[in-house]
Parts: sequence; C-alpha cells; structure tokens
Amino acid sequence: MLKAEICITLKKTVADPQGLTIKQALESMGYQGLEKVRIGKFIIIELSGRNKVSAQKEAEEMCAKLLANPIIEDYRIEIKED
Amino acid sequence: MLKAEICITLKKTVADPQGLTIKQALESMGYQGLEKVRIGKFIIIELSGRNKVSAQKEAEEMCAKLLANPIIEDYRIEIKED
Repeated sequence: MLKAEICITLKKTVADPQGLTIKQALESMGYQGLEKVRIGKFIIIELSGRNKVSAQKEAEEMCAKLLANPIIEDYRIEIKED
Repeated sequence: MLKAEICITLKKTVADPQGLTIKQALESMGYQGLEKVRIGKFIIIELSGRNKVSAQKEAEEMCAKLLANPIIEDYRIEIKED
C-alpha cells in the first residue's frame, strides 16, 4: 500500500494569525530566537492499487481540486511505501 | 537558520471525523481505493542561534508542552537547514 503525505502551508505572503499566536505563546514560555511560526495542514491518504507515479499524480489532483486552496496555499506531496 | 518541520497526527486509535469527511468527499469525486484519510497539523518553526541537536531537543519540548496533545496525538520532527 502507498501513503501520500501532504503538507499544506499558507503562502509566504499570506498572514498567519494562528502561527503568530503560537509564536507568542512559545515566547511567553521562555523560548527565544524564534524567527517565524507557520501553521498548516498535514494530510495522510492511504491508497491501494496504484504505483508511485500514479499516486503522486492523483494526490496532486486531489490537492488542486479539494484539499488545498491554490490561491493562498502551497502544498508538498511525498509518496511513501506503507 | 534552522527550520523545524513538525507533523502532528492523531494516534491511530483515535477517531478522525474530519479525515472521514474528506475521504467521503474524495470518493464522491470519483477517487477509488482510498483506504484511509487522516488529518493533522503541520507546523514550521524557524529558529536562530542553535545547532541541529539543540533545535531538535527544543522542538520536542515545545511539542510535549504546547503544540501537541500527547494523550491523543503523535508527532514527528524534522530539522532542516533553511
């Protein structure tokens, strides 16, 4: 079985208030030297009956059509053997 | 500068209704052979003034203390050069 691991992040130019809140929380806990904190989504899809190439292609299609918003988000896909 | 990429997922035994909803949405779009869809969080923290070992240690501490809920979530940390 193959596993598509998809990391979806906001584009660099898009404000990320959730990330900023977590950055401030970490700083209030005493962590220093935090330059930036960005929050995104992590999606794991287990796929059967495909090879790596078709799994990659299909996962990209799923991102473009449903999982990510290409206007404000970037995504990265990794196909792994499960 | 170093970048800690943190993937937080629900433990396998914990129900993931959001993942199930996305699985059903993908199936209704015609995708077949989806065994499982799980949704998690993806956090990128940019750290300055550390080496890889201390960055890894600190990121693990941040996960345990704030970012993840160790009762229901697992996490994986990767330290990368930015």
